[in-house]
Amino acid sequence: MFISFEGIDGSGKSTQARMLAEALSAAGHEVVATREPGGSPGAEEIRALVLQGDPERWSPESEILLFTAARRDHLERTIDPALTAGKIVVCDRFADSTRMYQGMRREGLRALVDELHRLMIGREPDLTFLIDIEPEVGLYRAKGRRGHEERFEDMGLELQERMREGFLGLAREYPARFVVIDGARAPEDVARDILARAQAALAAR
Amino acid sequence: MFISFEGIDGSGKSTQARMLAEALSAAGHEVVATREPGGSPGAEEIRALVLQGDPERWSPESEILLFTAARRDHLERTIDPALTAGKIVVCDRFADSTRMYQGMRREGLRALVDELHRLMIGREPDLTFLIDIEPEVGLYRAKGRRGHEERFEDMGLELQERMREGFLGLAREYPARFVVIDGARAPEDVARDILARAQAALAAR
Repeated sequence: MFISFEGIDGSGKSTQARMLAEALSAAGHEVVATREPGGSPGAEEIRALVLQGDPERWSPESEILLFTAARRDHLERTIDPALTAGKIVVCDRFADSTRMYQGMRREGLRALVDELHRLMIGREPDLTFLIDIEPEVGLYRAKGRRGHEERFEDMGLELQERMREGFLGLAREYPARFVVIDGARAPEDVARDILARAQAALAAR
Repeated sequence: MFISFEGIDGSGKSTQARMLAEALSAAGHEVVATREPGGSPGAEEIRALVLQGDPERWSPESEILLFTAARRDHLERTIDPALTAGKIVVCDRFADSTRMYQGMRREGLRALVDELHRLMIGREPDLTFLIDIEPEVGLYRAKGRRGHEERFEDMGLELQERMREGFLGLAREYPARFVVIDGARAPEDVARDILARAQAALAAR
């Protein structure tokens, strides 16, 4: 089973992805916890190439190609082998993040992201947790852990609001795999909610 | 006018690309001499990522995506601005090399290279010089300049023969832009031939 976490910066999705992986491991499942961009040695190198340096040095199109190359490598080297071995994969961000952060940068780019995904990736998670919060809360939280490489966080409130609406739109577009989670509560409450949903999905398989 | 050079390793295409750029400059044209993979700062970084390290660390699909990302950047930052400014672009390798070196690695990959090219690049050179030589000659020449990063040269005679046939097939596929040049002659004779063809093409525009 392939589970992804999505949400705007500061939503708590990385924390929640880690907590779910730990809880599923504790329940006796074999779990691979991974993240995007990155998640395999080659993909981590591509991540560094894109996220370091001047944010304007890649066009959206080049960035979409680089992230798709990283995703292809991540899929081949980490995700697919784990799924084939019967493990649960918990991934912090996947293709939905490219649909949002690159796909919404200009008219027409979302269609390009989707066509490239169909051609080179062709896989969606079985279950996607969208951790939904008010952009004000996300921005406040994200600012608390500045200093490490995260240039997506260098975005204003207005853009975060657009991204939040975009993610909620994706959840309506893919209702079979998306579960929208209220991320404004205490992390333990959010985690309990997510674990229950994941266990229900596992039991239904 | 956008001119590319193609051919197997050791065919002399890099030498000929340089000689043509110099001759066109000497004749008063504004010329930008460039190469692939690479040709812009971002694309050169992608080149290093792909060509350094274990040759098996990228799958053909990831490699095609990385080369397409590099080509997109090269096009945006170097080729298109030069053409817009009325300059002649002379490029050592372009998309035809991806069609051959990645596209012929497995059944179905050539179609993938072409679809990705249509989606993300959508441009062909106006004129492509294919420097054609016997693989034995190419291998002998290429071995004379070993030591620098060129992992495509780590290929046997049989593969070079397949590449030669593949390039000749491309020339039949795109007869309007391909000119096949006998590369077994002295470099000055080859260069004179190429310059005459390029000047004829420039005069016809």
